[in-house]
Amino acid sequence: MPANTPRPPYYAVIFTAQRTEGDNGYDEMAVRMDQLAAQQPGYLGIESARGADGAGITVSYWESLEAIAAWKRNAEHRLAQAQGRSDWYSRYSVRIAKVERAYGREG
Amino acid sequence: MPANTPRPPYYAVIFTAQRTEGDNGYDEMAVRMDQLAAQQPGYLGIESARGADGAGITVSYWESLEAIAAWKRNAEHRLAQAQGRSDWYSRYSVRIAKVERAYGREG
Repeated sequence: MPANTPRPPYYAVIFTAQRTEGDNGYDEMAVRMDQLAAQQPGYLGIESARGADGAGITVSYWESLEAIAAWKRNAEHRLAQAQGRSDWYSRYSVRIAKVERAYGREG
Repeated sequence: MPANTPRPPYYAVIFTAQRTEGDNGYDEMAVRMDQLAAQQPGYLGIESARGADGAGITVSYWESLEAIAAWKRNAEHRLAQAQGRSDWYSRYSVRIAKVERAYGREG
């Protein structure tokens, strides 16, 4: 963190969620989805943080809206999305945004 | 979480950072900045998560780029930004993005 993204413009998927109690297979699937996302065309990076209260934010970065749409349709990812809705998240939000400016300090 | 934002379009400031060791006045300032941000024109909401490893993400939502620029210039916020650079963050990134689509499930 932060992800080493190229100069804007590019796209961000801001995923914000409140986890349910217990693991229920979540940790294993989260690692798998991070790995799988990184293999998709147009993937630029990912950042994730979750507090002890279960509130978490994951931001993934992509070259294009087409790359985001393709990742959303990925068969294994669709199974994870369905399990997320049924088992892992009591509330969640997905926001798709175009990154227009970026600055900061590298480590 | 998630923040209860209106229909897109609106803007997001994605702030990703790695904290240094120790508090150094951070927690108190973070609470104050959340309160102060919420009083600014064009503020729509904020989401924040930080893991035990010190990696954190805060996303604030705004009606316009002008609202974001005004908040960045706020005098008290500028002092906090300077202290962030000198004391609190070893690495950080600020990305300004236009939210084009949003969906999810309310609690």
